[in-house]
Amino acid sequence: MSAATLPPGDVGSVLEQSRTLTWPVLRAAVGRLAPQMQRVAGYHFGWLAPDGTELDSDGGKGLRPALAILSARAVGAPDEIAVPGAVAVELVHNFSLLHDDLMDGDEERHHRATAWTVFGSSDAILGGVALLTLAEQILLDLQTPAGAAATRLLTGATSRLVTGQTEDLDFESRTDVGLDECLAMAGNKTAALFSASAAIGAVLAGADPRTIDALAQFGEHLGCAFQLVDDLLGIWGAPEVTGKPVLADLRAGKKSLPVVAALRAGGPDSARLADLIEHADIARDDIPGDSGSGHSGSGHSGSGHSGSGHSGSGHSGSGRRRAPIGADDDRYAAMAELIERAGGRSWVRAEAERQLAIACAILADASPPERVLRDLTDVASFVVGREL
Amino acid sequence: MSAATLPPGDVGSVLEQSRTLTWPVLRAAVGRLAPQMQRVAGYHFGWLAPDGTELDSDGGKGLRPALAILSARAVGAPDEIAVPGAVAVELVHNFSLLHDDLMDGDEERHHRATAWTVFGSSDAILGGVALLTLAEQILLDLQTPAGAAATRLLTGATSRLVTGQTEDLDFESRTDVGLDECLAMAGNKTAALFSASAAIGAVLAGADPRTIDALAQFGEHLGCAFQLVDDLLGIWGAPEVTGKPVLADLRAGKKSLPVVAALRAGGPDSARLADLIEHADIARDDIPGDSGSGHSGSGHSGSGHSGSGHSGSGHSGSGRRRAPIGADDDRYAAMAELIERAGGRSWVRAEAERQLAIACAILADASPPERVLRDLTDVASFVVGREL
Repeated sequence: MSAATLPPGDVGSVLEQSRTLTWPVLRAAVGRLAPQMQRVAGYHFGWLAPDGTELDSDGGKGLRPALAILSARAVGAPDEIAVPGAVAVELVHNFSLLHDDLMDGDEERHHRATAWTVFGSSDAILGGVALLTLAEQILLDLQTPAGAAATRLLTGATSRLVTGQTEDLDFESRTDVGLDECLAMAGNKTAALFSASAAIGAVLAGADPRTIDALAQFGEHLGCAFQLVDDLLGIWGAPEVTGKPVLADLRAGKKSLPVVAALRAGGPDSARLADLIEHADIARDDIPGDSGSGHSGSGHSGSGHSGSGHSGSGHSGSGRRRAPIGADDDRYAAMAELIERAGGRSWVRAEAERQLAIACAILADASPPERVLRDLTDVASFVVGREL
Repeated sequence: MSAATLPPGDVGSVLEQSRTLTWPVLRAAVGRLAPQMQRVAGYHFGWLAPDGTELDSDGGKGLRPALAILSARAVGAPDEIAVPGAVAVELVHNFSLLHDDLMDGDEERHHRATAWTVFGSSDAILGGVALLTLAEQILLDLQTPAGAAATRLLTGATSRLVTGQTEDLDFESRTDVGLDECLAMAGNKTAALFSASAAIGAVLAGADPRTIDALAQFGEHLGCAFQLVDDLLGIWGAPEVTGKPVLADLRAGKKSLPVVAALRAGGPDSARLADLIEHADIARDDIPGDSGSGHSGSGHSGSGHSGSGHSGSGHSGSGRRRAPIGADDDRYAAMAELIERAGGRSWVRAEAERQLAIACAILADASPPERVLRDLTDVASFVVGREL
């Protein structure tokens, strides 16, 4: 999480209110961890330099905490009741970032070196689990039925997160990924936690199950829209905006939604894209790396203990191979072009709009107070409007 | 977990009863995971071969589940009430094994290749988190106050587990580890989950806080005794018993309790041991490895993003360096000899007996039914008697 520039207007003000409520509690919670884990987490959140000195950072935008606070308002509850939930969803989100950066071999996030490159893999693994556990403790420490229900909501989302990351890694080594399973993966990887965020304030307020379910459904569709947009940014996003290298997802061999939509579209562009991807996969396989780690290579095909998991040279993250920046630029630019020509880009954009519309319709049906309906709708449009 | 040979007599019968109750529920719970996570977990538990075919294994001894079942009996509750707790503690235990094997670079456990060597680092990380999350879900799915209290107990133990593993890795690169902090580390790494196991059945039964606390204290001291014995086995245990290479902990540079006790004893043997360890550390630093990962090297000293976290060749686990088997055998044998002569071995043995005695005294004070008192005492003596 790096210092965030908040949008102007109502959305910016909602995010600011949520951050003011949430950040001090988040920071105090992290202060409960073992000293080394405080350093890893503090670095990851942007509060600390690698050597532990304080940085002048106000943290990220805090979309998920804002949804949590708004979900309490949606059922007429005071903001304060949602704060433990807002902190918990932010902790779970950052648990997943710490682990995913390692597994994906990502060396930068928001223009900063990722935690695993600074502190090593073990600290990144432990730091992630520490944040995850802390999230549950904050809710369980309430020692109320609502706190337990909120924890249950959150562990359900965590379970889906893990499934989604498993699928995401699995897809990298497959060429036959269908659009439905790719959407399901995005649902697990991203929408699950958005859904929990958009409902957790209402759960903590002890709201009725129907309203909770509507808010969860709103968050689910919003999360799908978010991931669709994120997938567009992963290919066409400007590095200064995304904090990632240009064409990052293509270099990583990700079977993201625009790729899969283009591959499944059929036609000559689709076929040429499949060809290019196959050759890029072969080229990536030639990059020296930890061939058995991660989901590529023999480990995942179940061929047993062939020693491949711990041999090889040139360690990158948890073993993911990716094309270095600058290498094969033409190949990846051509891929992006073919994805666009095969209709992958426009399909994803339309699907994001469709998911946003469903989210807003579900929300309106639930009839929250007018002001809250407007704020949630504005936040939703902002989330999806990052790129569209 | 490999097929276990149960001890004869009452202890064997208690373990067998607990396994009969627990294993089918554990297996069904793992069946809720994503297919690839089922394979990773099933392999780790010993149920499946690397290619997913069924193995004829009856799982491990299940010490922690047995404690959970006995803790329900201790408060007069039926076994069944403890089963979700028994399954949950076994899941958390195996989460920590999956992650620790990776971080420690251990390639074998119970004479089988560890999961990360078979499936890769990412699957081991995801598999661990999947088991951890499943443990909490099983308890929260009860949707009772007792289920929430049991989850809280378990997340507290998990938090201590993470702290203990952080300390354990940190100690490897330090020469000034004190006996008190080493005991505290063992308490976090091992005793925390024993404590939760020994109390969780009583928590699920809604027992009074005093009895719960006594059972937790019993488990805490028993867990300390267990770790002390484990540290003896880590140096002097026969490979065919431990499933680990001879002198394993010394090769790994672990500052385990016998090492620290010997270093803190003072005298010429102590000084010679310190010398040998320093030279072994330097020799291990010369082993090609992922120098920045884990807690050794520049990553942990906070010197920032020097690229060391993802450079280097010869990947081993999450980056831990250890002396290969056969290399420097004389050095490690001499170390073991010096630890013994400096009194490290006898101190640890005496401390294990002392912790066992405290555990049993606390238990007797809590006045559980006579039969349960005997069973718990027998299990405790069995746990500690593995080596003594």
